[in-house]
Amino acid sequence: MIEIRHATLITNNDNNEVIENAVVQIADGKIAYAGLSASAPTFHAERVIDARGNVVMPGFVNTHTHVPMNLFRSYADDLDLMSWLNTKIFPAEDKLNEDSAYWGSMAAMCEMAAAGIVAFNEMYFFVDSIARAARKSGLRGILSRAVVTPAPGVGERMLQESVELFEKYNGVGRLKVYLSPHAQYTVNNAMLEKLAQEAKRLGTGVHMHISETRGEHETCVKEQGLTPIGLCEKTGLLDVPFLGAHCVWVSDHDIELMKEHGSSVLSCPKSNLKLASGIAPLTKMIQKGVNVTLGTDGAASNNKLSMMEEMTYASMLQKGTTYDAKAVPAALALKLATRNGAQALGLDSGVIEEGKDADIIMIDTSGIRYTPDYDIVSLLVYAGSDADVCMTMVGGDIIYENGEFAFADIEEVKARVCGYAEEMKNI
Amino acid sequence: MIEIRHATLITNNDNNEVIENAVVQIADGKIAYAGLSASAPTFHAERVIDARGNVVMPGFVNTHTHVPMNLFRSYADDLDLMSWLNTKIFPAEDKLNEDSAYWGSMAAMCEMAAAGIVAFNEMYFFVDSIARAARKSGLRGILSRAVVTPAPGVGERMLQESVELFEKYNGVGRLKVYLSPHAQYTVNNAMLEKLAQEAKRLGTGVHMHISETRGEHETCVKEQGLTPIGLCEKTGLLDVPFLGAHCVWVSDHDIELMKEHGSSVLSCPKSNLKLASGIAPLTKMIQKGVNVTLGTDGAASNNKLSMMEEMTYASMLQKGTTYDAKAVPAALALKLATRNGAQALGLDSGVIEEGKDADIIMIDTSGIRYTPDYDIVSLLVYAGSDADVCMTMVGGDIIYENGEFAFADIEEVKARVCGYAEEMKNI
Repeated sequence: MIEIRHATLITNNDNNEVIENAVVQIADGKIAYAGLSASAPTFHAERVIDARGNVVMPGFVNTHTHVPMNLFRSYADDLDLMSWLNTKIFPAEDKLNEDSAYWGSMAAMCEMAAAGIVAFNEMYFFVDSIARAARKSGLRGILSRAVVTPAPGVGERMLQESVELFEKYNGVGRLKVYLSPHAQYTVNNAMLEKLAQEAKRLGTGVHMHISETRGEHETCVKEQGLTPIGLCEKTGLLDVPFLGAHCVWVSDHDIELMKEHGSSVLSCPKSNLKLASGIAPLTKMIQKGVNVTLGTDGAASNNKLSMMEEMTYASMLQKGTTYDAKAVPAALALKLATRNGAQALGLDSGVIEEGKDADIIMIDTSGIRYTPDYDIVSLLVYAGSDADVCMTMVGGDIIYENGEFAFADIEEVKARVCGYAEEMKNI
Repeated sequence: MIEIRHATLITNNDNNEVIENAVVQIADGKIAYAGLSASAPTFHAERVIDARGNVVMPGFVNTHTHVPMNLFRSYADDLDLMSWLNTKIFPAEDKLNEDSAYWGSMAAMCEMAAAGIVAFNEMYFFVDSIARAARKSGLRGILSRAVVTPAPGVGERMLQESVELFEKYNGVGRLKVYLSPHAQYTVNNAMLEKLAQEAKRLGTGVHMHISETRGEHETCVKEQGLTPIGLCEKTGLLDVPFLGAHCVWVSDHDIELMKEHGSSVLSCPKSNLKLASGIAPLTKMIQKGVNVTLGTDGAASNNKLSMMEEMTYASMLQKGTTYDAKAVPAALALKLATRNGAQALGLDSGVIEEGKDADIIMIDTSGIRYTPDYDIVSLLVYAGSDADVCMTMVGGDIIYENGEFAFADIEEVKARVCGYAEEMKNI
């Protein structure tokens, strides 16, 4: 029972309504009332939050990340995707264990909570460690075990693990479990088909890297006569909820297939630039009606888990590369980073209105960057910073507030992560 | 007499040296010592700053901005350059006066100081107001009065004003004055020649918008048979220190001309994206040996005065559009935002070493985004935020520290700017 008063409320609804001096009442993890102060019903709050000078809005949904990779931030920068993977990241990942993966994940939970992220979509291994960190944090998460087929039997074992993880964690607390073919270039067609069948049987979805680099996309076309998305359609992967990460090099037909199957695009603008993969054609996808969402990717390839920045980059890049300054305007950019992500992940949030899950953040807009205020959504998208987030609430629980984490001793998290980094340096 | 102890010192020197547990001693506005703690001479400091957990580095140099435009932040977003100028910004600028221009400039001084910017290069009108704000702030600035020739006599009057401003402010405190042909498409050739001659006579430089949009560049080629930079060469503007803002559409020959004449490029990556102008070919310019620097442009077209973000965008965009992840690596990005800017503006800073001006900033790297630390420069460029700046020093004077401004009552600045914004809404 929390009541937020005197907020500038960005509802994020279809009309992009912004309500000044708003009240939000939260009970049983849901929004009981959100609107004008004058019309608010009587409410017996256990805590009242004065949001004067602050914005209240839906939390960010990070639709593509690899949380243990917080361990590798700044370990390997200024390298292209394949060198980055083969010479630095894969060898580093070989040294991971349950414990280091847990502390890396905890670092990501802290970073995401402090940046106003309320839910994330994850693909990695050491899923038990990730699940432990996610449950401790209170964030909503879709977890998945990346499946690859480098040698006979390996993929089958990973698929078996995935099914076990589904049985263990799907629906537990705020977690769900999807299946993850890592990518077309790391998984053979037979396994793509098996994963599609297994996802159907379990009633779950899939999360997959797709057409991230030009080379990967074109090699697939050359060798298989189909694009990666075309191959996903053929193997049945598009018949279940499909979350396609990156989609930088998708064809017009791929976009149509994704629209037709209700698939979601998980675009990671900063990671795609940093690893020199390119710029995804988001404007075209949006125009075709595909559900476009945003993700940070892992901290090793970004190097931040900031959805504020991803939404700014998404808008800026589309304007600058389509030569249309009206491309992805501020209100739409905000939706890509919140509501569209919630839709992709099957969450009942992304809009502040009665009955929705109380996945809400508060942003301190008292700084000089928010002066003057002709348009608060413009200010957030073009002048905001995740450093301005002052409260993050998931399902009515405040998990972060003014530098304090409800779920972690931040100094311990930093010390553990730095400890593993020291070990890495000595390898 | 200030001594900074226990710093992680990013010297920004030719060897990209980073010194742990460093001492920096400052006397008479200059760096008296910078290096290992163990080798530091005895020093009678009036103040000792403990920089444990912090980075100390050269301050950012913002080479292109329009400070009074802080009044127009969020006033006109998601519009292309020409609509933005003609339907929103020019009418709004008609309403400016000495007083509003001063408070808009003060808002920019506060924003820049808090973001670790120690010097800026400015082009606008109401230069007396800007000079007053700049002198109050302590920032170093090159000021200029934009000259345009919309009707007979107008340009001559503006040139006369420019000369008077030069006499009034050049060399006063931390200010210099340049001449500013606004752009090729707003200034006739006769006036370009006059400005070149006058700059030569005064022994000063010029600051000009150049090839910002494709339309502007191509129209010039069509109508004059020369690119805008070609026209600058012909009219003598490249014979004085030439600061060319934007340079998005410059030709290979333009780049050669700029190199040959020692001109500097003032690239504004975020503004160029937001106004749909495009992405400047910085990699090519850098390879050719041109001095590439970064600017924020005005707050109405960015919407932030954050050099941290400009350096990140500069690096990311070059990687993503040249498909080379090694393009503009972190250490180079940092130089574009600091040392190259200092060179363009003729400042004796940009490197932390004995004898240089003490234009120094401190960055709090205790947050989770700086964990783990395999490479502190990578962390700053790819995971840093201007919100992490905790101290800004110009010429040995601390102008900003931990949220406090030495030169301004931030609440008064915000109230004044909001007051003018309210008036604007009622026009």
